Amino acid sequence: MNVRPSVFPGAIAAGSLQQLRHPSPLVHCLTNDVVQSFTANVLLALGASPAMVVDPAEAAQFSAVADALLVNVGTLTHPHADAMLAAIQAVNQAGKPWVLDPVAVGGLRWRTEFCLDIIKLKPAAIRGNASEIRALSGLSASGRGVDSGDDSLSALPAAQQLAHETGAIVAVTGETDYVTDGDRCWAVPGGHPMMTRVVGTGCALSAVVAAFIALPGDRLDNVAAACRVMSCAGERACATVKGPGSFTPEFLDNLYVMNGEWLNGETQP
Amino acid sequence: MNVRPSVFPGAIAAGSLQQLRHPSPLVHCLTNDVVQSFTANVLLALGASPAMVVDPAEAAQFSAVADALLVNVGTLTHPHADAMLAAIQAVNQAGKPWVLDPVAVGGLRWRTEFCLDIIKLKPAAIRGNASEIRALSGLSASGRGVDSGDDSLSALPAAQQLAHETGAIVAVTGETDYVTDGDRCWAVPGGHPMMTRVVGTGCALSAVVAAFIALPGDRLDNVAAACRVMSCAGERACATVKGPGSFTPEFLDNLYVMNGEWLNGETQP
Amino acid sequence: MNVRPSVFPGAIAAGSLQQLRHPSPLVHCLTNDVVQSFTANVLLALGASPAMVVDPAEAAQFSAVADALLVNVGTLTHPHADAMLAAIQAVNQAGKPWVLDPVAVGGLRWRTEFCLDIIKLKPAAIRGNASEIRALSGLSASGRGVDSGDDSLSALPAAQQLAHETGAIVAVTGETDYVTDGDRCWAVPGGHPMMTRVVGTGCALSAVVAAFIALPGDRLDNVAAACRVMSCAGERACATVKGPGSFTPEFLDNLYVMNGEWLNGETQP
Repeated sequence: MNVRPSVFPGAIAAGSLQQLRHPSPLVHCLTNDVVQSFTANVLLALGASPAMVVDPAEAAQFSAVADALLVNVGTLTHPHADAMLAAIQAVNQAGKPWVLDPVAVGGLRWRTEFCLDIIKLKPAAIRGNASEIRALSGLSASGRGVDSGDDSLSALPAAQQLAHETGAIVAVTGETDYVTDGDRCWAVPGGHPMMTRVVGTGCALSAVVAAFIALPGDRLDNVAAACRVMSCAGERACATVKGPGSFTPEFLDNLYVMNGEWLNGETQP
Repeated sequence: MNVRPSVFPGAIAAGSLQQLRHPSPLVHCLTNDVVQSFTANVLLALGASPAMVVDPAEAAQFSAVADALLVNVGTLTHPHADAMLAAIQAVNQAGKPWVLDPVAVGGLRWRTEFCLDIIKLKPAAIRGNASEIRALSGLSASGRGVDSGDDSLSALPAAQQLAHETGAIVAVTGETDYVTDGDRCWAVPGGHPMMTRVVGTGCALSAVVAAFIALPGDRLDNVAAACRVMSCAGERACATVKGPGSFTPEFLDNLYVMNGEWLNGETQP
Repeated sequence: MNVRPSVFPGAIAAGSLQQLRHPSPLVHCLTNDVVQSFTANVLLALGASPAMVVDPAEAAQFSAVADALLVNVGTLTHPHADAMLAAIQAVNQAGKPWVLDPVAVGGLRWRTEFCLDIIKLKPAAIRGNASEIRALSGLSASGRGVDSGDDSLSALPAAQQLAHETGAIVAVTGETDYVTDGDRCWAVPGGHPMMTRVVGTGCALSAVVAAFIALPGDRLDNVAAACRVMSCAGERACATVKGPGSFTPEFLDNLYVMNGEWLNGETQP
């Protein structure tokens, strides 16, 4: 790719958000222990419905009736892995989408093998930072943990390759987020460095991606809309707070009142 | 029942709250992964003492010395179920009360069977939404997850039947909460729709029910007091905040300074 | 000891904090389910990097590359215990420090035996309340749970004995914190009673101890610096908030902007 991707239009994000709120999609979250409460609160603030059902048999039963499934491997254990596999099979059978957040893949062996296995099970989207997306695509990663040592634009070729291989929409997030189906690509600017000082902003974004990908319409646009809604709420919150503690309430409030004018950039925080 | 239940008097709630604060009851919480921190902070703000001890042998040892036990099946796993059974046996042997929160019962098979089994072990109280209470009482439920599709008043007959069958005080919560021992019944108004956009308000209420049911006095009144304290803190918080993010700090602050005047409705937020 | 320990100088705390921020230490947290999010947010606000990796094989792999390991037994289970042992062996082999938070030790049998076993594996620091430190030192404890029935000064002899036996820096925390290597001792005043009404302030302190003990320099000073940074942020937050709900955002904001002037007591909240 020789040209920088175009900036995702706020108007499309606004349209997706309006669809999300009526009716509210039910998102089954199999996510890590650290971010469960924040993830649920982000989805609720936006108008989606979260649920966490973790026993393998119940997870399969529940995923079949949910609108989308999130699989986040941040605190993967063997019982969690069993529940994830059962839930993925259930959503695939029910024709519902699932989203992968490959936390710290590349740096840790078992979860890397696990994620390389499950991306064969047709995720509808994959959301990770540069080093995670590189690792999944088979290119080398430099991260030693959950923070990426690479910038998101440099990982865009890896994201495109991964999208081609898996059929998933791939979002590689960082200072600017890039969202691609392998051919088309959107750049989603916004956000703020302070968001990296609050645990779970990336994990919660993956849950929001799951909520938006349950909507009808173009999946590339819907994933980009999820990224833009979160970056817009974040940049507005950071403009008014004095630190990462007061960020969280302000961010959730912004998601609750998020609107087309904000997404179109017509008003300033 | 041909008449609507009477509204629970604020003065009784105020009396129960005063008792709760001296001495602070120790509540053993076996609850779901999503709400553990919020549940603990709600109990601490009110003046009760939470503890979460989850290994089956330790849970039994701890429940025997706690003042009450909460069992919430939101993220039930087989190890959790073992710990719950061991803890219930220990509290029953020690003559202490336990409270059941049957999250998503009716919609999911395994937890429904588990809860139908453990309600034979004499819970002192059961707190759920309309569809959960219906499902436990043997009447059909319409919920597909943690949100109820039924309103609370229509589930009052199911609550009364469940109270008669189990000997528990049953609280069916919604826009108005109804609390019954099968014969007598209180209506507890208050709260605010925004509370449904914050994860764990219902789960935390069940923990507060466990704290109040450890008090001496009429158990029906004490359970209604728990509902009223939470609805009062919630409606006051919602009157001043702009969204579900700023709700949480304001709600906890309100619990911390909750007082008889507020419960008696003598002051406005 | 016949004299009260000297008050830890703010200037040393300021020096340690400056070191902490460049480069940010990576702290592997094997901690309890209730406080994971708050612990991560405290470390991030201060400028350290948290990560929670819980599968035993991955925990061992990860601890070998982290800068320090935290072991907190608050919600100990057998799988957690396996991960903790694997991670401790890995950090010991890699020559990195690990910190023990012996939550509720003394009151509960299995975790008491487990902690008495692992303190033979050379923790760099142990942070607990008076009853927990007494229990680990072999002196009797009066706590029935996570709250201490003893005051911290009275447990200082137990802390000194434990430091001598294990080679660890021992911090016994309470209204005033005492930090000792068995011979030398610092008193760290500050904090506020409202901090006991917020879940996880002690657990998060142990994580901050792990971050500071990864720094070069005198380990006694670094552990005392961790205690002082947290007590300073807490007392400043409590001076401006109306309850434990608004405490949490304010506390995290204070950690984010914590500075030498505050630690030296040159400015007032």
